[in-house]
Amino acid sequence: MRYLTAGESHGEALVGILEGFPAGVGMTAAYIERQLLRRRKAWGRSGRQRRETDTVRILGGLHRGATTGAPIALLIANRDARPLSASAVPLPGHADLAGALKYGFSDVSIVRERASARETAMRVALACFPRRLLGGLGITVAGRVVRIGDVVDERDSSGHGNLHEAMRRELDSAAAAGETLGGEFEVVARGVPLGLGSCVQWDRRLEGKIGAQFMSLNAVKALEIGAGFGLSGSKGSAAQDAICRDHSRRGFYRPTNRSGGIEGGMTNGELLVVRAGMKPLPGAAGNCASLDLRTGRTASPRRYRSDTCAVPAAAVIGESLLALALADALLEKFGSDSFQELKARVESWRQQCRVPLRRSA
Amino acid sequence: MRYLTAGESHGEALVGILEGFPAGVGMTAAYIERQLLRRRKAWGRSGRQRRETDTVRILGGLHRGATTGAPIALLIANRDARPLSASAVPLPGHADLAGALKYGFSDVSIVRERASARETAMRVALACFPRRLLGGLGITVAGRVVRIGDVVDERDSSGHGNLHEAMRRELDSAAAAGETLGGEFEVVARGVPLGLGSCVQWDRRLEGKIGAQFMSLNAVKALEIGAGFGLSGSKGSAAQDAICRDHSRRGFYRPTNRSGGIEGGMTNGELLVVRAGMKPLPGAAGNCASLDLRTGRTASPRRYRSDTCAVPAAAVIGESLLALALADALLEKFGSDSFQELKARVESWRQQCRVPLRRSA
Amino acid sequence: MRYLTAGESHGEALVGILEGFPAGVGMTAAYIERQLLRRRKAWGRSGRQRRETDTVRILGGLHRGATTGAPIALLIANRDARPLSASAVPLPGHADLAGALKYGFSDVSIVRERASARETAMRVALACFPRRLLGGLGITVAGRVVRIGDVVDERDSSGHGNLHEAMRRELDSAAAAGETLGGEFEVVARGVPLGLGSCVQWDRRLEGKIGAQFMSLNAVKALEIGAGFGLSGSKGSAAQDAICRDHSRRGFYRPTNRSGGIEGGMTNGELLVVRAGMKPLPGAAGNCASLDLRTGRTASPRRYRSDTCAVPAAAVIGESLLALALADALLEKFGSDSFQELKARVESWRQQCRVPLRRSA
Amino acid sequence: MRYLTAGESHGEALVGILEGFPAGVGMTAAYIERQLLRRRKAWGRSGRQRRETDTVRILGGLHRGATTGAPIALLIANRDARPLSASAVPLPGHADLAGALKYGFSDVSIVRERASARETAMRVALACFPRRLLGGLGITVAGRVVRIGDVVDERDSSGHGNLHEAMRRELDSAAAAGETLGGEFEVVARGVPLGLGSCVQWDRRLEGKIGAQFMSLNAVKALEIGAGFGLSGSKGSAAQDAICRDHSRRGFYRPTNRSGGIEGGMTNGELLVVRAGMKPLPGAAGNCASLDLRTGRTASPRRYRSDTCAVPAAAVIGESLLALALADALLEKFGSDSFQELKARVESWRQQCRVPLRRSA
Repeated sequence: MRYLTAGESHGEALVGILEGFPAGVGMTAAYIERQLLRRRKAWGRSGRQRRETDTVRILGGLHRGATTGAPIALLIANRDARPLSASAVPLPGHADLAGALKYGFSDVSIVRERASARETAMRVALACFPRRLLGGLGITVAGRVVRIGDVVDERDSSGHGNLHEAMRRELDSAAAAGETLGGEFEVVARGVPLGLGSCVQWDRRLEGKIGAQFMSLNAVKALEIGAGFGLSGSKGSAAQDAICRDHSRRGFYRPTNRSGGIEGGMTNGELLVVRAGMKPLPGAAGNCASLDLRTGRTASPRRYRSDTCAVPAAAVIGESLLALALADALLEKFGSDSFQELKARVESWRQQCRVPLRRSA
Repeated sequence: MRYLTAGESHGEALVGILEGFPAGVGMTAAYIERQLLRRRKAWGRSGRQRRETDTVRILGGLHRGATTGAPIALLIANRDARPLSASAVPLPGHADLAGALKYGFSDVSIVRERASARETAMRVALACFPRRLLGGLGITVAGRVVRIGDVVDERDSSGHGNLHEAMRRELDSAAAAGETLGGEFEVVARGVPLGLGSCVQWDRRLEGKIGAQFMSLNAVKALEIGAGFGLSGSKGSAAQDAICRDHSRRGFYRPTNRSGGIEGGMTNGELLVVRAGMKPLPGAAGNCASLDLRTGRTASPRRYRSDTCAVPAAAVIGESLLALALADALLEKFGSDSFQELKARVESWRQQCRVPLRRSA
Repeated sequence: MRYLTAGESHGEALVGILEGFPAGVGMTAAYIERQLLRRRKAWGRSGRQRRETDTVRILGGLHRGATTGAPIALLIANRDARPLSASAVPLPGHADLAGALKYGFSDVSIVRERASARETAMRVALACFPRRLLGGLGITVAGRVVRIGDVVDERDSSGHGNLHEAMRRELDSAAAAGETLGGEFEVVARGVPLGLGSCVQWDRRLEGKIGAQFMSLNAVKALEIGAGFGLSGSKGSAAQDAICRDHSRRGFYRPTNRSGGIEGGMTNGELLVVRAGMKPLPGAAGNCASLDLRTGRTASPRRYRSDTCAVPAAAVIGESLLALALADALLEKFGSDSFQELKARVESWRQQCRVPLRRSA
Repeated sequence: MRYLTAGESHGEALVGILEGFPAGVGMTAAYIERQLLRRRKAWGRSGRQRRETDTVRILGGLHRGATTGAPIALLIANRDARPLSASAVPLPGHADLAGALKYGFSDVSIVRERASARETAMRVALACFPRRLLGGLGITVAGRVVRIGDVVDERDSSGHGNLHEAMRRELDSAAAAGETLGGEFEVVARGVPLGLGSCVQWDRRLEGKIGAQFMSLNAVKALEIGAGFGLSGSKGSAAQDAICRDHSRRGFYRPTNRSGGIEGGMTNGELLVVRAGMKPLPGAAGNCASLDLRTGRTASPRRYRSDTCAVPAAAVIGESLLALALADALLEKFGSDSFQELKARVESWRQQCRVPLRRSA
């Protein structure tokens, strides 16, 4: 499975293609639009963001409401299709400076049009297909905000999705001050079969694939799997998860989950837990100094409308990224022609993982 | 540039191939062996590790001490080539359980032979080529330990490589107790040209490529670029790095480096700073419970000789991973046939990045 | 550089994304539509094909008429967007049977919607970008029909593009009989720099990349580079191309071009010559027997409107495929951020290839 | 599944890594050496070639004679490890000229060391694993010479592997004259399941993958699948293969096989038939003119010991290439963790392809 996205933030539309996805998975534009709405309506968004809606057109890969195995093409029209006005002053914290020099522009708005997090709407849209596929196999992904600025949600990963009241207040007060905030979000996947990913080659380790997905999300600067940095201070005798077996239904299981569902490059059948840290968006009032790329002289970047905080939206996007990574690993292990075939193979595998091995090596 | 590694921990040898590397970079087996020695002699290793030496054979890609553009093949013989004895009891924290089920073995030692961190010796060996290439362009990578267990080195990223005295004591006392420790290491790259990586497609963002490299290292459970999670609590007005220009030599520069040298998927010309958190190795005394894969009954994993701590070694391996990621991004931007060609292009690019743009978009 | 296409033959639209293409290459929808018209109006097409026109929308990657380095997204609306009516009888010679079983459909029209050569319209559209890029570097690609059914054009590869009069008669008489015809086409690239592709790894040889492109074109069953099968009967002493040097302008050149511009996996600076053989399209009158996939009983595939011959169109598509393969190899050697950068590097390389080497190995 | 090879023709050894290959496939060095012997002893080889033997060491990926899922590493020592003596005169027909300029050498022997067909020994060795895997699923690959110089073997593809007597005489008389010869070889795969490859994206079409494999073989300049160029002159009504069904055992089958076992990018369950044309090797006596790269002046390439004809060896190598392409497509469809898992899935699929579809789309 692979995917590409295209389109500019204030261009005509975003476009995406998802390739290598199996036939037989049901999908509607309405389902995708609901996920896009979750991303868009997340607290911390600017007023305009929260009022508008994204509509999506499915231009390929669907027949009578189900995938066909053909590549899936999506188009999300941009309602606000006025291009950014030109500027030669790069905004610190954005792709502006490096992008302008790399691609040979003095107008940094051309760079920002594509580097903008608007692109993540298409990742969320494309990920609806993996999300549905996983759902059909009993695998769910759920994101939540665990920190906004200085406010940390102390509750555990029990899957509640609502933003803590103190966080909302933090967001509102930052918005009033023209300030932006960073934070942390967590995504948990339930029902993941054991054995996705591999330990045999560096670039097939699932941690690396999750690292590639999450670190490629705009503004993410930090990542943890399971207890993450918390394990750095643990003693080895208290850092692992015992291996147990439940004779009734589950088969192998772990009474603790410090490893966050991945050991040695592979899923171990427990909850998969990923946490990411985001920096505040660059568009805050009183942003630091820059210069004019044409003259080289000091200049202030233009005031730039910005969301107050991208973390609540990122919790939704993070679900999408984890769905993409997991579906990819799943299709690699089980093949990717049709959902019917896939489902039978996954069920057989789950059954097999419940009982002791009869084979000897 | 791409690379594959092969070979088992106690097999005959480790083998690696590095493909797409330019001609004209000097290399000797002695240089590679020195890097392997740095990895091996790192504090925290078991006695056997520290006594032995790795010798490497360069089997392809070199002519009279310089690369030829042909794929590079390396072989590191395993001195201790006795296979692990068979065991049906998976060690929690290792790839044993998932790997045995996935590949169909009841003997978990077969899985551990390949999942072992011994494999990283080959990554260090292959990375000597990127390291030399970068060195020839004035780019260096330097790793250091920033935490062992509860002991944190408060010094800044100024590049000292020695292990803090308190850390050594922590390691020695853990070793005496048969305990293992985790920690954190940091890798810093200096002299990196602006504009490596790209903002235009999710999988070309340099953060994602660094994420893939570092999260694929055994026992790494957390990652930060620049100020990392520290930025999650910052206000936006205090989280960016101003853009300045030095008329003498450097051209564009930043008085602060919160972003750790990457903005919007691309290097920005500042120090590139990556920090990773590792869990303690699984082989501690008093390791938690497991079961026998053949019977499904509770059993203790066999006592397994282990290093006390992998973090000092990982600081060396991390240099290698960053060198691999940076060289890959560099060759993508500048082409990869010969070092001579590459060097001229990089110099011309650096010159161009120092002066204001004359082009308009 | 990489690209994906999506969309069904009678769906709403075809969609394509081209990724990794440099900034600074001029493009208009009109240019793309002219290339689509060349493909569509080619002799041998059915009446409907020749009457209609394709219009294209450029949805990403362009700013004021030039590429920006961002991924390029194209959309070609299907005018005739009525889906094929369902059928359970696979047409021999098409993807129908294998596709229906593979993706789990008894309605073969779902398979044919994507397997149809309508998809090649998007390949032609996307290839306009490589074509323009090559053009800006003095490299051109030109296709011509060399055979239709039993009529062979004996003229040499001098680049004329007109269909031989005898071929037109052959096409018209086949059309009148409800018959389809195969044939051969040739594509020639001029001005290609020496040294594209590589001899050092199997999957970097340019012949293999050209093989992948051309053999993936619908109905192509045979391929030759240079003298092709003609060389199989030659003596070695008469099969190679001498290496000469012209002191005025060209530098190294070959008085003959039996190798068709590629030796040892790389371009040698001569005309690059590729020839492909196509089978007749499956939709001929009196098509052979098939069966009903639901019952397993013998049945006739439904009469299916078809072009008489795809070879004249394929000569245009072949230009596109060669442009894609060459641009990819070019960007690999020279880097792909901006055309300005690329052009300077190509010019410097060409200059360097004209003179004797001063370096010693 | 992916693989890389390394090592020079007269260097210490050839090295290869095969990654993504399932556990549970039996292998011995002796099996690999037998295949290497078939390649080496093929008629047309020089005396030295035919006297020596290749010995192989399996350095990774095997445990007690069966694969483990870990990457497979092979090493073939070069007995004749004296490097070629330096030369600044490129041999026409080889990679010498383009390679020397590309990688920056005036000594063309450095280029030829890697560009040499000696590298194909490693492809044959690595392909033993796919070959065994396919064998365990009832799929065989068999190559034969169909033409040497002017002598064509008129027998059909019935799988005989012996070289026609007239061909041997042709080879012997060319050898006596210091001449080299080209020719054609054919590879046939039997027992291939329907539905490998895909019609949905250009680079997943099996013809393209076969094209990439075969066109990347040294000296191959032409390729045909099934009736190949012979179909270019056929009428559409006589060019397809009817779809029939055999109620006893085979399920769907074709009474003819003009398409050579592939339609619309996928296998159709019939014999897969590939034919390739090779040019004569460049090392013939009286080779055409060249020049000295340092002076630019006309010079004769050094007399170079060469096989008389590579076609008989290529028939063996071609089996390997087809095995690699088919195993890759098979593992993509069925997953690649263990042979046991793979076998059950393939059997279930074959059963399913024998009966009419019960599903409706």
